[in-house]
Amino acid sequence: MTKTRQIKLGAFLMTDGHHIAGWRHPRAPANANVRVDHFLRLARLAEAAKLDAIFLSDSLGVRDTNLESVHRTSRNVGFEPLTLLSALSVVTHNIGLIGTASTSFNEPFHIARKFASLDLLSGGRAGWNLVTSSGEEEARNFNLDRHIPHADRYDRAREFLDVVKGLWNTWEDDAFIRDKVSGTFFDPEKLHVLNHRGRHFKVKGPLNVARSPQGHPVVVQAGASEDGRDLAGASAEAIFCAHRTLNEARAFYADIKTRAANAGRNPDHVKIMPGVSPVIGRTEAEAREKFEELQSLIHPAVGLQLLSTVMGVGDLSGYDIDGPLPDLPETNGPKSRQQLVLDAARRDKLTIRQLYLSIAGARGHWQVVGTAEQIADALEERFVKEGADGFNIMAPHLPGGLEDFIEGVVPILRKRGLFRTEYAGTTLRENLGLPFPEHHATHRQAEAAE
Amino acid sequence: MTKTRQIKLGAFLMTDGHHIAGWRHPRAPANANVRVDHFLRLARLAEAAKLDAIFLSDSLGVRDTNLESVHRTSRNVGFEPLTLLSALSVVTHNIGLIGTASTSFNEPFHIARKFASLDLLSGGRAGWNLVTSSGEEEARNFNLDRHIPHADRYDRAREFLDVVKGLWNTWEDDAFIRDKVSGTFFDPEKLHVLNHRGRHFKVKGPLNVARSPQGHPVVVQAGASEDGRDLAGASAEAIFCAHRTLNEARAFYADIKTRAANAGRNPDHVKIMPGVSPVIGRTEAEAREKFEELQSLIHPAVGLQLLSTVMGVGDLSGYDIDGPLPDLPETNGPKSRQQLVLDAARRDKLTIRQLYLSIAGARGHWQVVGTAEQIADALEERFVKEGADGFNIMAPHLPGGLEDFIEGVVPILRKRGLFRTEYAGTTLRENLGLPFPEHHATHRQAEAAE
Ligand SMILES: Cc1cc2nc3c(=O)[nH]c(=O)nc-3n(C[C@H](O)[C@H](O)[C@H](O)COP(=O)(O)O)c2cc1C
Ligand SMILES: Cc1cc2nc3c(=O)[nH]c(=O)nc-3n(C[C@H](O)[C@H](O)[C@H](O)COP(=O)(O)O)c2cc1C
Repeated sequence: MTKTRQIKLGAFLMTDGHHIAGWRHPRAPANANVRVDHFLRLARLAEAAKLDAIFLSDSLGVRDTNLESVHRTSRNVGFEPLTLLSALSVVTHNIGLIGTASTSFNEPFHIARKFASLDLLSGGRAGWNLVTSSGEEEARNFNLDRHIPHADRYDRAREFLDVVKGLWNTWEDDAFIRDKVSGTFFDPEKLHVLNHRGRHFKVKGPLNVARSPQGHPVVVQAGASEDGRDLAGASAEAIFCAHRTLNEARAFYADIKTRAANAGRNPDHVKIMPGVSPVIGRTEAEAREKFEELQSLIHPAVGLQLLSTVMGVGDLSGYDIDGPLPDLPETNGPKSRQQLVLDAARRDKLTIRQLYLSIAGARGHWQVVGTAEQIADALEERFVKEGADGFNIMAPHLPGGLEDFIEGVVPILRKRGLFRTEYAGTTLRENLGLPFPEHHATHRQAEAAE
Repeated sequence: MTKTRQIKLGAFLMTDGHHIAGWRHPRAPANANVRVDHFLRLARLAEAAKLDAIFLSDSLGVRDTNLESVHRTSRNVGFEPLTLLSALSVVTHNIGLIGTASTSFNEPFHIARKFASLDLLSGGRAGWNLVTSSGEEEARNFNLDRHIPHADRYDRAREFLDVVKGLWNTWEDDAFIRDKVSGTFFDPEKLHVLNHRGRHFKVKGPLNVARSPQGHPVVVQAGASEDGRDLAGASAEAIFCAHRTLNEARAFYADIKTRAANAGRNPDHVKIMPGVSPVIGRTEAEAREKFEELQSLIHPAVGLQLLSTVMGVGDLSGYDIDGPLPDLPETNGPKSRQQLVLDAARRDKLTIRQLYLSIAGARGHWQVVGTAEQIADALEERFVKEGADGFNIMAPHLPGGLEDFIEGVVPILRKRGLFRTEYAGTTLRENLGLPFPEHHATHRQAEAAE
């Protein structure tokens, strides 16, 4: 029996919805950012539909310092991802739990330890989305006046990931004997101290958490600059990315798979999962109407600020909102996203207002508006034409938008044989189709035995 | 109706038990350190008995580098406290969730954020036990070759706590308006940016988590040196401490309450909760037998190493195990505990073996062995004579030892009117009898209105 390639699906849970004005939608609870039951409901919904994972982005602070806009949005204040995912781990059973954490403002020991702990709590369902942080405001919460320069923070990120993986390999999978009679708790030969000394970190180890049923958490990555892609090709097992057009998506897909192959990896072991924000109607017209309803809820101050943030540039409020985007100086911000938005602005000759409206819904991600059938077609095309291995579904408002997707689009994908009817296993790796990471010591033994 | 003073009770959950050989006890599961269901059962047990809190200690690494001993104990590897408490937060309803985190190897923004998130997840039941870490091995996981000197780490701790509290005061309790119609999510006047610039930290803020039903997490502290007591008197709302004799306990109690009063605080708003490890039998003889059974499970290599760790000194294996403790040089370790053990060794003329056996069960804490009635008497005496406001119960093995305490001792305390029959409320503050921390801005408004 040949195993057909199927779409992977993550539920991207931006609290009350991915659309910047999602919280004002009648179907979204306005207090979602302090309600764990809201997230419980979302996780259960996604699990009942047999989605691969829920996915939480992160920000180490309030990025937007513009009071005029920030007090009109809901997304600056909410639960911290690792605590929230831990809470969800004990009330779910199969769904993956992917959380974002920055390598720029953390220590590798804490990250290795907390994700390993989540991985055990969940029985092998944790994933770490590695980012290097984009905001200057975040640096200011960690003793710095400015963010670490782009190249340096990726240099740190590479070493950070090495340390984390080294710590995750502290214990062989069968290290713990736990023999009460002899009093032997573990086999000392199966403990591996790290003794890392590098440019950025000195970390001795060992880690004080055991390996999980999936070996160690899945390594996810987001950040699509040259440095980001290199890191992803070399090490990531899944990638979260943003593409608006099929061509962009295909180019990125081919590029990453090539980088993985060049790094000696099986390209199938890095799953590329761009974001997509679906607005679904019974007819296309109804879907458009729903989308316009959301767009109309965006206050101009919020739209302008969103544009500044996505592009990593300063205040845009001095410019004519109905005029073109001015030329802007290069910044230390997120290069790939900035370029995407700039390209779009020039290609379509958009005014500032049109530009912010064009990214407000999906925030630089792919926005699809149509019937469930149309959206299934669009996803299928992008999947079949190798623009993606799956998608992170960014419902514009939650839980409603996720319900719409699960009730409307998932059954169509399933009918077409493009999406699972049952979970493949209980770990995130099994469901994503990723290999179990053999411990290097076990691996050597197996080779020696051959 | 006068409100009588009642005993506060925490369940100190050292995975499979507080006794160093607890994991070898027939009633303890040997794999407790990877089983969340073990902790779930413990949390539910403690909550059913209406205990105030569960309490998790912490260690940022494997402290014991002596392979000979470390592979014979279970306590070096387990869940990370914040992730574990978050998991427990959604399957419990009233019990407090106190976790330990070090100010020496963390950043205040992360600690403020994660505990605030736990506080919201649990509906106002989080507590942060502030420690400065004792182990050299922990420093080596965080880019250092040696631990930060004692005075410096307390200097850092004081500033760290200021920053954390500052961040917890980012949002006034009623800052979030969430008015969908006007599109106003919060009142900008009720957001307070911190802008902290101190000797150790530059943290701008604001925090990206809202306040919880108990305002902010309860601040607990452990560390009984002069610097530790100063910090506790000035700021802690509960103290975890170790005293073996009534006199020691009373002296510490009086000292802390005086320091609190001198700092302008109500001494009743700092709850002193030493550890106590009970071994309970139907008769005193049976209790002694149970205790000896546990003691007999301690391997000498483990006993020696435990002594080294508790005292913060190097390898003791060169000395005659049945001879006296040699004179030891002063160290950078945990001063107060070291002194307690040294005093005991000299007072009772103990050999090294006798000394490690004497601390093995309770690890420097108060060991009580007897019938439920005898133990209730002992606790009552220490409580009434102002040696404690409550106790952290360190069951020698878990869950069995906690079950014994809850079935045997709790009903007696309850019958004597010394322990609650119902929770006072749903927050940890309400149950501990601690005041709601008014937000400074709200506070000023109230004063102005008078
Ligand atoms: C699709 C995508 C998602 C991202 N999500 C996050 C996030 O949740 N939190 C964060 O701090 N940074 C996030 N980043 C930002 C990057 O970590 C940061 O901008 C960094 O510079 C890497 O991006 P680059 O390689 O495109 O420059 C994301 C970047 C991309 C492309
Ligand atoms: C009762 C008690 C409990 C402690 N628990 C912890 C702990 O769980 N984790 C930790 O890193 N340090 C813990 N410490 C150690 C202190 O943080 C550390 O030794 C520091 O030096 C403060 O103690 P001192 O004031 O007695 O010197 C504890 C100390 C005491 C007295």
